[in-house]
Amino acid sequence: MTVKLGLVGTGTVGSGCIDIIQKHHDDFKRHYGIEIELAQVCSRNPEQAIAHGVEDIFTQDYHDIIQNPDIDIVIELIGGTTAAKTLVMEALAAGKHVVTANKALMATCGQEIMDLADEQECEIAFEASVGGGIPIIDPMKHSLISNQVNTVLGIVNGTTNYMLTRMAEDNMSYDDALKEAQAQGFAEADPTADVDGFDAAAKIAILASIAFNSRVTLDQVSTEGIRGIMPTDLLAAKEMGYCVKLLAIANRTAKGIDVRVHPTMLPLTHPLATVNGVFNAIYVVGDAVGETMFFGEGAGAGPAASAVMGDVLEVARHVQAGVKPLVGCTCTDHLPLVPMESLSTRYYIRFVVEDRSGVLAATADVFAQHGVSVYSVIQRGTQSGESVDLVYVTHMAQEKNIRAVIADVCKLDGVLAGNHEPTVIRVER
Amino acid sequence: MTVKLGLVGTGTVGSGCIDIIQKHHDDFKRHYGIEIELAQVCSRNPEQAIAHGVEDIFTQDYHDIIQNPDIDIVIELIGGTTAAKTLVMEALAAGKHVVTANKALMATCGQEIMDLADEQECEIAFEASVGGGIPIIDPMKHSLISNQVNTVLGIVNGTTNYMLTRMAEDNMSYDDALKEAQAQGFAEADPTADVDGFDAAAKIAILASIAFNSRVTLDQVSTEGIRGIMPTDLLAAKEMGYCVKLLAIANRTAKGIDVRVHPTMLPLTHPLATVNGVFNAIYVVGDAVGETMFFGEGAGAGPAASAVMGDVLEVARHVQAGVKPLVGCTCTDHLPLVPMESLSTRYYIRFVVEDRSGVLAATADVFAQHGVSVYSVIQRGTQSGESVDLVYVTHMAQEKNIRAVIADVCKLDGVLAGNHEPTVIRVER
Repeated sequence: MTVKLGLVGTGTVGSGCIDIIQKHHDDFKRHYGIEIELAQVCSRNPEQAIAHGVEDIFTQDYHDIIQNPDIDIVIELIGGTTAAKTLVMEALAAGKHVVTANKALMATCGQEIMDLADEQECEIAFEASVGGGIPIIDPMKHSLISNQVNTVLGIVNGTTNYMLTRMAEDNMSYDDALKEAQAQGFAEADPTADVDGFDAAAKIAILASIAFNSRVTLDQVSTEGIRGIMPTDLLAAKEMGYCVKLLAIANRTAKGIDVRVHPTMLPLTHPLATVNGVFNAIYVVGDAVGETMFFGEGAGAGPAASAVMGDVLEVARHVQAGVKPLVGCTCTDHLPLVPMESLSTRYYIRFVVEDRSGVLAATADVFAQHGVSVYSVIQRGTQSGESVDLVYVTHMAQEKNIRAVIADVCKLDGVLAGNHEPTVIRVER
Repeated sequence: MTVKLGLVGTGTVGSGCIDIIQKHHDDFKRHYGIEIELAQVCSRNPEQAIAHGVEDIFTQDYHDIIQNPDIDIVIELIGGTTAAKTLVMEALAAGKHVVTANKALMATCGQEIMDLADEQECEIAFEASVGGGIPIIDPMKHSLISNQVNTVLGIVNGTTNYMLTRMAEDNMSYDDALKEAQAQGFAEADPTADVDGFDAAAKIAILASIAFNSRVTLDQVSTEGIRGIMPTDLLAAKEMGYCVKLLAIANRTAKGIDVRVHPTMLPLTHPLATVNGVFNAIYVVGDAVGETMFFGEGAGAGPAASAVMGDVLEVARHVQAGVKPLVGCTCTDHLPLVPMESLSTRYYIRFVVEDRSGVLAATADVFAQHGVSVYSVIQRGTQSGESVDLVYVTHMAQEKNIRAVIADVCKLDGVLAGNHEPTVIRVER
């Protein structure tokens, strides 16, 4: 039998999928006995459909696909959590299998969607929602399940990784790095989702849910972005033997699960430290397998379409064999989330202060008052001469104490020069 | 239903599997609905069975497992290609599914075993045969199948990678590095399979067969080991911006597939260049996904058992669902193998020559005679003062011409000082 596909969305990823189907349709049949047919394509943009030679199967109304009894698999590539949610829920309700690349949708409505899929005995596959082309969800749902996974660390946002790489290697300012990323097409005109960490937060919510068999949603991820990072921070980190990455972190701890996104100092010897530019990588530690890492291109037509079509072919294989979904929702546990306040780690904190006597002593005093032990302090001059960078690195400390230190330091006379908020980078061992 | 397992072999990996089953049996049921029971264990060594508390289900005769009608899955962990082959073929003939970690077996008898499995509608899974705990076979058979894979490069032997790392970072001699690897338990008393490249060759034969949908066997892999490598080679490479790795290489070319194992100079910027010590990594390039890499621990009880048990749980899931094998042998194409002689690459060649006039000129003449263009030549003195290292790096050249150059240079008076064979390292871009 031929498995029929309905594709919704003909942007970058959708176009990539059409290309793969046109190029490798015969290979899939010969190598794997999987016969697929792109039966219907929906887009707001008829020109994109025409450009790909699919005008004969084109529609502007996705209901045509949902209501088409021949369609076995609906591929959702429109993004967002409104129209995409309606589409996915309607497709599942109509008994269609769904493949999606939609991280925001799965990180916010994952439970609802997977429950409906389980109820309908339909598959919902979303490999492309994390790490672009990198196989990570499938290995975590299959190859690694004999492990208790204890840690997932991800460089899962290519835009910010590109910016931080340029800032570190070429001493580029944040603004210039962002402009360049936008010019290269790596960053959106509104870069909020990337630079403020929300894109990475959605991805780690998805990975944590799978890794710990316990649902984590986007709003539960403590998230900080990279807006405060300056080349001086990257240089200081390097001198200490570290790099700075926007890291998506999920840890299993005795108290529950700890899920967060923030700029992080990583030792230069860490497998993730050499992941530069727009590349992504996910580092997974399991109790049997030890350290593993999955590396590749996190975005772009080819990589994302590779992941989407990998899912499509897997579901098609099951449809052909008449096999009901073998893996549904695996969030069978309900682990508590560890609040960010109780995090214990080392901290890099850069204050901008007035260059005059007494300020250093006053700040040091605040650290002592809150029982935060200082590992090193460096005062770095800036070009203006009016304000200087005052960089503290602490020993192990609790987040709530660090927050109290920062609040109190910021009240001191001579701190917050030029209204610069302190920059905080947590240190990962 | 409970899926019953028969485990044969209680060495490092077998013991690791028993540990995982005992530790996570209830988790598998709760998270995935997979219920497994270790029903029988076979070993030549009763003490190992007793040490793991499995004496009640112990046998010294594997036929007890093959003939046990309750056993669904046979786990083969005895290694080698004689008894292991008999066991695997008998298990499949008896209608049992088989999970194995046996690279030599799959690289030599893979076709025969997979044909029997297909005929018997049984599964044969072998994730642990390559890269220890790293998920690589499963991603290549599922997540990445929408790609035409064009290149697979692997650091798939931890012993030699450990030795080369110690030689490069600590200027250790080959012999000292080998002794240390043996003392640490990374290398066998007879290190032939590792240092001569046969272990890596078996692994790349398996990966190439999957990547190119065309069967490659161990004897078809052109194989050279690391015995000729000295710290001076690693230093010279580093000065040129390269590292040296024992690389397992599989390329799809216009003329066919090119599969080989040899010491290779890799640019320090390559994702594989930072894979040090006993870690393994496999770098895969597909036409849609671009560059990907899979990294982790290539050996040891935990990692290998993680991969074996991942396979066991996947097969058990299918057994419970009453699902027949979804993926059998995928070697549907019959691509020609490119002979090593027609390889084109750049070469690093170190001759040991007598330290006297005329030798350099004579060697340079041979390169010119065979039309091999020289990129650089460096003569390096040794402590003895009687012989010196003469290192050539070529531009792109053909393997057959390089072989002719080496044969002719070795005939020259003053070359092969102290009977040192030339050391050849191919350069990967």
